[in-house]
Amino acid sequence: MSLDGFIAGPNVSSKEPMGEGGERLHDWLFKTKTEMDARVVAETFESSGAVIVGGRTYKIAIHDAWGGISPFDSTAFVLTHHVPNEKVKGFVYITTGIDEILSEAKKQAGIKNVWIMGGANIIQQFIKSKLVDEMQITLVNVLLGDGVRLFDHIDIGQIELERTRIIESAGVTHIRFRVVK
Amino acid sequence: MSLDGFIAGPNVSSKEPMGEGGERLHDWLFKTKTEMDARVVAETFESSGAVIVGGRTYKIAIHDAWGGISPFDSTAFVLTHHVPNEKVKGFVYITTGIDEILSEAKKQAGIKNVWIMGGANIIQQFIKSKLVDEMQITLVNVLLGDGVRLFDHIDIGQIELERTRIIESAGVTHIRFRVVK
Repeated sequence: MSLDGFIAGPNVSSKEPMGEGGERLHDWLFKTKTEMDARVVAETFESSGAVIVGGRTYKIAIHDAWGGISPFDSTAFVLTHHVPNEKVKGFVYITTGIDEILSEAKKQAGIKNVWIMGGANIIQQFIKSKLVDEMQITLVNVLLGDGVRLFDHIDIGQIELERTRIIESAGVTHIRFRVVK
Repeated sequence: MSLDGFIAGPNVSSKEPMGEGGERLHDWLFKTKTEMDARVVAETFESSGAVIVGGRTYKIAIHDAWGGISPFDSTAFVLTHHVPNEKVKGFVYITTGIDEILSEAKKQAGIKNVWIMGGANIIQQFIKSKLVDEMQITLVNVLLGDGVRLFDHIDIGQIELERTRIIESAGVTHIRFRVVK
């Protein structure tokens, strides 16, 4: 997330899955990755026993941009209105809603975490439904100016957080919060 | 600033200068202040040789809410369309624009910093005009949900930042950035 709250640039498309200029938010991952960044990423993958992905992110970022190969170690559950004809190994398609997808993902994850990967819309749905336990924010040293906001449309009043970890890396700050319930 | 980017709640007024629910953002200052928080605040005051305040913030937060007594150690310059009839000691009123107010504030500040205190609108004007050298963000462990965004309407493309300091305190994280020019 940029300091001004964007996790993608404007006009997200299959050609530009991070939106216009949004690739800047991935520089820490693909251009300037430190050993510490790599560890944080590995930790996220290893601690997750299941992944949840929104339908649009699946279509744009995985199916079109990543050539239909799952980047995840564990099963990814896709919340979508339409189960695609062309199914991809490693993905399970759920059409019923966030409660059902979470229930399926939890069964799969066992004692491990369920990683709600994105996009913004599905994360917002989970936050609004108070189903998020922890948030791992990668704060990027940039003002993006425009794009898709991570925290938007969450009109349920204040949500208290507890900061549980900060890791300072070269181009980003990894901050982890626990949601106080 | 809350994690979702708000520096005040919605409906800022003289009665509620931090907006509805916005006082939560000042808990670190008035309720749970640590020695480290106090040091960061003292540093801001002591390192500033002049302060710049927007007209609305002056009217609502200083004139009405603080009973017209300047909370600043150094002269505060107020950008306003209308110089008030009732002038307050410690304030200078400027009607011409951000270049002129900065020029006057710099003369006053000498070798010290000019502190652009807020509100959001005047900070955004200064960011857009590339006149900001450093940003000191107090990131509060809360999602506010609604209110006045610090970083909004800054439609000049990406602005690179360098994170120069992080201080972890109890309820907030003080993060300082240098604007890369």
